[in-house]
Order: sequence, then structure tokens, then C-alpha cells
Amino acid sequence: MADVYVVGAAQTKFGAFPDESYRTLFTEAFESAVESVDGEFDTDSIDEAYVGTLGVGGRQLGLSGPAVTEHAGLDGTTCTRVENACASSGTALRLAVLAIRAGVADVALAGGFEVMTDMSADRTRYWLGVSGETEWGRMSGMTFAGVYAHMAHAHMSEYGTTREQLSRVAVKNHANGAMNPNAHLGFECSLEDAVNSTSVADPLNLYDCCPTSDGASAVLLANEDVASSLTDKPVRITGTGQASDRVGLFQRQTLSSIPATRDAAEAAYDDAGIGPDDIEFAEVHDCFSIAEIMAYEDLGFCDRGEGGQYLESGATERHGERPVNLSGGLKSKGHPIGATGTGQVVEVFHQLRGEAGQRQVGNLSCGLTHSVGGSGGAVAVHVFEEGWA
Amino acid sequence: MADVYVVGAAQTKFGAFPDESYRTLFTEAFESAVESVDGEFDTDSIDEAYVGTLGVGGRQLGLSGPAVTEHAGLDGTTCTRVENACASSGTALRLAVLAIRAGVADVALAGGFEVMTDMSADRTRYWLGVSGETEWGRMSGMTFAGVYAHMAHAHMSEYGTTREQLSRVAVKNHANGAMNPNAHLGFECSLEDAVNSTSVADPLNLYDCCPTSDGASAVLLANEDVASSLTDKPVRITGTGQASDRVGLFQRQTLSSIPATRDAAEAAYDDAGIGPDDIEFAEVHDCFSIAEIMAYEDLGFCDRGEGGQYLESGATERHGERPVNLSGGLKSKGHPIGATGTGQVVEVFHQLRGEAGQRQVGNLSCGLTHSVGGSGGAVAVHVFEEGWA
Repeated sequence: MADVYVVGAAQTKFGAFPDESYRTLFTEAFESAVESVDGEFDTDSIDEAYVGTLGVGGRQLGLSGPAVTEHAGLDGTTCTRVENACASSGTALRLAVLAIRAGVADVALAGGFEVMTDMSADRTRYWLGVSGETEWGRMSGMTFAGVYAHMAHAHMSEYGTTREQLSRVAVKNHANGAMNPNAHLGFECSLEDAVNSTSVADPLNLYDCCPTSDGASAVLLANEDVASSLTDKPVRITGTGQASDRVGLFQRQTLSSIPATRDAAEAAYDDAGIGPDDIEFAEVHDCFSIAEIMAYEDLGFCDRGEGGQYLESGATERHGERPVNLSGGLKSKGHPIGATGTGQVVEVFHQLRGEAGQRQVGNLSCGLTHSVGGSGGAVAVHVFEEGWA
Repeated sequence: MADVYVVGAAQTKFGAFPDESYRTLFTEAFESAVESVDGEFDTDSIDEAYVGTLGVGGRQLGLSGPAVTEHAGLDGTTCTRVENACASSGTALRLAVLAIRAGVADVALAGGFEVMTDMSADRTRYWLGVSGETEWGRMSGMTFAGVYAHMAHAHMSEYGTTREQLSRVAVKNHANGAMNPNAHLGFECSLEDAVNSTSVADPLNLYDCCPTSDGASAVLLANEDVASSLTDKPVRITGTGQASDRVGLFQRQTLSSIPATRDAAEAAYDDAGIGPDDIEFAEVHDCFSIAEIMAYEDLGFCDRGEGGQYLESGATERHGERPVNLSGGLKSKGHPIGATGTGQVVEVFHQLRGEAGQRQVGNLSCGLTHSVGGSGGAVAVHVFEEGWA
């Protein structure tokens, strides 16, 4: 089975870009990814491309993968659009890994995009609703923030997680994002501001919610033969895991955990031959503050129910034992849905190579990305390690 | 690399089913596929599922893959939605093959669905338009029939392809579909009726166009270990190929050919270690009559420009040298977009096993499926052979 390496990774700035289209954003991310490769990268060498997008709004809905790769100059490159809601490009990454492992590609592209800020708030709420369960959930008036509000209520009630612990997710991630020039909301926030902000869906307030953003990201993968000709700072994908669960929260066994994260993480750890203790840092899917706290538990960073205390202990701060969301996460960096999964890889790639600039945290050798679709109907987890196989 | 076998395949009847939902249709196809397996098939053994759908209309748009697999009882099974327009489940099939080859799955499900008949003609035209190029093509008034009408004009002008040859595609495929109880338009048509029917987009008339349909299909794949425990009538996928091209027709080098079909076929033939002469029968993507004629040429069944004569020679009739669309094809069997690619596999599976009932054509050992997204922005080609590796 071919080993898979990340040889380049980049994202656009995430934010509101009324003068850009989904095509220009994807092209910008792709071209930056090509520039990030150490050696001379031939774009004609890309055998397969996987592009994640939810397809928010009224843009190209059929063939939206080939529609962006052609604009990036890859009109002859085999391309597939992948959609697993907010895990779309987390899933695209996995498919690119499988294409190389299966031997149909020596070099593969995984990426994603979304344009969300050109819609009214009502339209955005509609489109995000479709990432929840449509037939019963959304039709009964459930918003997407409402889905995670139910989870937060359950977690607070079962484990005593506090309002302040939720807000500390925002404070930490904004502190990280303030150092990231690509962040949508690249400013710090105080605990007081986070605790006291406007309610969105009780108990979640504005600072518990990530923004809706425009943006794109792209990751270039290669087998060892190609990677060794391009770089002497290898970053290897050693574990890939994906799992699904009921789409609608009302059909789950638990509201205070995302079982598909546990299953995907177990698969990724098995694949990599490691355990959660080996993960030194992670980019996790903090679409809402409670999501990051549940991720700590479901990824095995702490015991079930202890996510709030784990956060409060400082373990996941940038100088803690296991920094989480050094990029700022979805909360501060932004969440252009289809761009988010491969966007996480950008931070891991730079941190493992010691190239994260002012965000760099010492010498890191093993990181993880965690990408959640909807409220956990699909989850992709990947493990990255520094060095050759 | 693990060899990949088809151990089960089924589809719903294609047609207009106002009392069914996309979930009940998919479940019906999946359960029929399970029943089609020779041995006792454990649905818990499915490691990965890939589901193709364009997502026509206003249904579950995020996580529409997991939304149907959960309804089919596979709520714990890793699931990814794939969208390459009309090649969505042709692409899903390829991904399921890669998952087994890459070793992350021993057993995989590929399938697809679409519900199209609950929309007004105007909405259908809109949604089909999104499979063409949206920003310039559709916005300038191009319909999807219009896209293929341009191709037909070009082919007639460059190669002398005739009105009657186009109509003979319909006559042949309806004759086949009349023997298929799952066909949407399961009736025969005369050459006179086909030639003289109402114009849709000149030169294409009603009988040059496939219907819009509701339906679902599902294919169960397994590696050799599992397959050998389930059946002694093996059908192996020996070749997978996929390619892309510019989404918009106005950006192509040629209008009288689909280059992505040529590229995907070449990749599939290389993968299988065969050539077009080895293909005994095929299910090709005849969304419009001209598409089947171009497919003959692009798949290498005849020389460029000779598709019309090749058809007229009777070569692709059910008792010809290389029967094409024994199922009735998209033209007669119907075209529920996401269900079409894996729907083609159903016919190939039964023909290779000698179980196609009144449609069975002698002893066949090598067949092909050809799935086109849009006007060729993405194409998937697969080669199937009878017997163990």
C-alpha cells in the first residue's frame, strides 16, 4: 500500500469577499498550494482531484468539482465533487488518500470551497438547516444552531459543563486566530464579552457560534516516490478514518457526544498504529463551542464528561500539553463549509514543518484533523506525522 | 491490490412514483441488491458506502448519502455522497472499487437515487440546466437538451449522421426496454414515430431524449475473500477509469465527441489490460440519441464519425456483434440521475451471470458501463468480466 504525503497545502483568507467567485477563490487556494511545495511541482502530474462543497446557494450545482478545477487550469484532470455537509473536504481528503493507496494516482488534489456571505441571513439559515435532518428536524423548525444547543444542554445537564467553559473555547480560539492572517474573525475576545454576548439558541450565544464565511483550501498529496523528489521535510498521512451516524439528532442514542467522531478516530488511530495519547496537537471541528468540548472526549483526549475541565486546565491552550485549533479553528478562522476540512490540514502541515510563523508551537511530530458533517452524520479524522515511512 | 467483485446488484423500477420518497426508493433498491446475493449476506459487513445523487429539488441536500443509508438500516456505516451530475453513481462505483483496492473496505456499497417527477417542467429544466455550465451556458439560455442538440448538429454536419440514424437509437433501445419490467418507458416505438415526433431542441425531438425519472439502484462489492464465500458465479470489476473535461460545451475543442469518454475508457481498458475489441456488450449513457452514437466512437467500438453507420449495420442490436443498452438504456429504462450509473451495473451483472431472463443474450464474459456527467465534464467507465481473477 502506497504511503501518502502532503507536499503542499494552502487556503485563501476566510471572510466575506463580494468581489470573488467560488471559482476565483478555489483557484487562489490551489495556486497557493502549488507555491507551498518545496520543489518544482508540475500541475499536470495531478492524477485525481476531489473537491468538497455543500453547494450553498444557487451556483453550479452539477459538476461543481470539475467547474472549479477547470478554472484552476486542471481541465483535463479527473475530478469528483464530494459532499458530506461540513465534512465535505475532510471526506475529499480521505478519497485522495485512498486513490493514492489504491494506486490509481501518484499525485492527488483534495480541496474545497464555499461562498456563503452573498445570501441573506434567512437564506443562510435555510441552507445550514439542510445540514441538519431535513424531513423532520428542519421541517419542525430546528435551526442548525438549535441542533448544537440541544447538545450543549445535554452536556451541561449530564456533566455539569458550565457557561464559562463554553465561552473559554471562544476566548482560546480567538487568541489563536488573532495570530492568523487568514482568519475571518482575527481578533481577540475577552471571557466577559464571550459570556455576555447575544443569545442565538439557548444556551449558545453569538460567541459560541462560528461565522459563515467565503473561502477555499487545497492540499496536494503524493506517494513516496514523488514526495521524495519534491521535499526533504516530509509530512505523512498515517491514519485515515471516517464514520457515519443518524443524520437527525432525534434518532441518536446520545446528545452529549458524537459517536461518529469516536468511530472515525478509532479507525484513524488503528490505521496509524497509534492512540490518542500520541496526538500532540489537533485541529478540531468547533462549529459551536460545545462541539470542541465534545471533540476532546470523543477523540480520546480526555474522559467522557471531562471536556469542560480539560479545557479549563489549559491543556488545549497554545502552550498547553495538547494545543487545539492553533489556527483559530472554525470559531475565529471561519467556516466556509466545503473549505474547512482541507483548511485544517494547512495548519497541521505548517506546524509539523516548523513553518507556522508566530503561531509555531515548538517541535511537533504528530497532529490530527477532525471534520464533522452536520451534527455528526459523517465524520472524517486524519493523523499526520512528520518524517518518512 | 485487492480484486473487486460484484456480489449483488438491483434497481427499483424507474418511473414516476408520487407515493415514494428518495429514502424509500433507495431502501427498496438496497434490499433488492441484498436479496440478489447468492449466499447469506450480512449487511453489517458493509464497511463503506458511496451514494450518488445530483440532489435535484428541495430534499436533504447536506448529508443526503447518510440520509438514505440510515433509512436502509445502515446508520453505522461510513457513507459519502458523491456528485458528478449524471455520472454521480458511476463515480460512486469507482470510489467503492478504490476503497476495496486500498484495503479500507472488504465490502462496499455503491448506489444512487433521484426523485425528479414531483417538479414542474420549468423546475426540471432549471435543475437539468445546472448540469450544464451555469455561469455562461445556462445564463445565456442554454437548456440541457440544447447542449446535446449542438453536439448532434456538429456530428451531422461533420460526418453526415442522419435524422434516421438518431431515431434508430430510440427504436433499438425501446425494443430492449420493452422486455425490461423495470423500464420507465417500457414500450416499443416505430422508426416512423421516432422520426416524426415533436421537436425539443433542433435537431433533437422527443424520441431523441430520455425521460426524467424517479428511482434508485444499489450494487454490493466485495474483495475475493468475501466474494468467494458468497457466490460461485463471480463477476469481477477488472477496469475502472474516470476523466474530466471542461464543463461548458463552449470551451471544448470539439462538439462531435466527448473527450472525457475517450480518456476514461483508455484508463479503464489499461486498468483491465484489454482493449475495446474485447468488450462484448455495453450499457452506455444515451441521455440523448446522439450521445449513444458518440459513445460508440469514443469507447473505440468504431472509428470516429462512423457511429451512425455502426448503429445502422445492426452491430449494437440485441443480436448484433456487440449489443448496447440491452436494459433499454436511459432512453427507455429511464434516467433518475443519481441512480443511472449503478443502474447500468444491474444489467451487466445479470447478463454476465446468464440471469437476464428474456433479455439474456447468449454467454457473455466481458461487459462495460459508461456514465457521463453533464455533457462530459466527468465520465466514468468500468469493465466487468465473468470469473475469478
